[in-house]
Amino acid sequence: MRVLGVDPGLTRCGIGVVDGVAGRPLTMVGVGVIRTPAEAETPDRLVAVEAGIEAWLDEHRPERVAVERVFSQHNVRTVMGTAQASAVAMLCAARRGLPVALHTPSEVKAAVTGSGRAEKDQVGAMVTRLLRLDAPPKPADAADALALAICHIWRAPAQNRLQQAVAAHRAAPAPRRTAPGRRPQKGRPA
Amino acid sequence: MRVLGVDPGLTRCGIGVVDGVAGRPLTMVGVGVIRTPAEAETPDRLVAVEAGIEAWLDEHRPERVAVERVFSQHNVRTVMGTAQASAVAMLCAARRGLPVALHTPSEVKAAVTGSGRAEKDQVGAMVTRLLRLDAPPKPADAADALALAICHIWRAPAQNRLQQAVAAHRAAPAPRRTAPGRRPQKGRPA
Repeated sequence: MRVLGVDPGLTRCGIGVVDGVAGRPLTMVGVGVIRTPAEAETPDRLVAVEAGIEAWLDEHRPERVAVERVFSQHNVRTVMGTAQASAVAMLCAARRGLPVALHTPSEVKAAVTGSGRAEKDQVGAMVTRLLRLDAPPKPADAADALALAICHIWRAPAQNRLQQAVAAHRAAPAPRRTAPGRRPQKGRPA
Repeated sequence: MRVLGVDPGLTRCGIGVVDGVAGRPLTMVGVGVIRTPAEAETPDRLVAVEAGIEAWLDEHRPERVAVERVFSQHNVRTVMGTAQASAVAMLCAARRGLPVALHTPSEVKAAVTGSGRAEKDQVGAMVTRLLRLDAPPKPADAADALALAICHIWRAPAQNRLQQAVAAHRAAPAPRRTAPGRRPQKGRPA
């Protein structure tokens, strides 16, 4: 399975492509950063991010795309750019019919380091080890994009089973539902 | 000037097209809403929003696009969808080389009602009056998109003058800058 990971951002959008399956050694196919000038207008920056992601998709033909899930708890200004860049990444992938998965930063950290609260350096070190690189990819956004791709390769089997279970459940005739608190309680007086 | 206004959203993305210039009666060219199913995955919803906006741009060929500026103070879940849909709107416009302007909700309300804190109904009523419609456009997202377009037509002359002033300032040779706090202070001992 070839996965393209995207650590979304307008100033630096990390991109990492990894080949592999869960339980086997992984291979880095490519890593880089799409940069757009901070002084440019947001619409033009989004066009540049789109062109960059399209070029990566064209060159590496991934089967799946993993994008960092954005929360709005953080810095107001930063989070908007991140949300907008992630929208462009999702759009580019979905337009090609590629499945898109979103992973939270803590899911990614937990996948590669064992701790959802790991520091940036630790993520970089584990990415270096898992992909047998000579040095941690720079900047951190590039390493994070590779970590996202690794996280997705490792979580995909579990996610697929879950999705199949949900699909099977939806396809099955719905069971009669009883409203919460109104379930008849056996052995107790009403 | 023909302006396409976008009130961004994933569930309902309002679109309104208005012809006019500041100081002259305005004409509504079209109004509508792009809807995407809440149960669909976000990447697929973004593809549907993109297709919808492209269709509006193709049909009405606006010269400018006005998009509501998104803030992240509001509901976390909603604001992400709004930010993502607004990114798609900006992307579609900028890809065609159309100038994109962002206006805050209070700028829009102030432009059409005179108050930045006006209620939805008041915006709808003024849009109806200004465009000489028989009834307020429904849903509110459609009326808001028209209000955005009106706001942009009215603010554009002032914004253009501002942009020209900024461009002229940037083109001029930069003055020598002194770091704050390190300015030589005359008449005081160092």
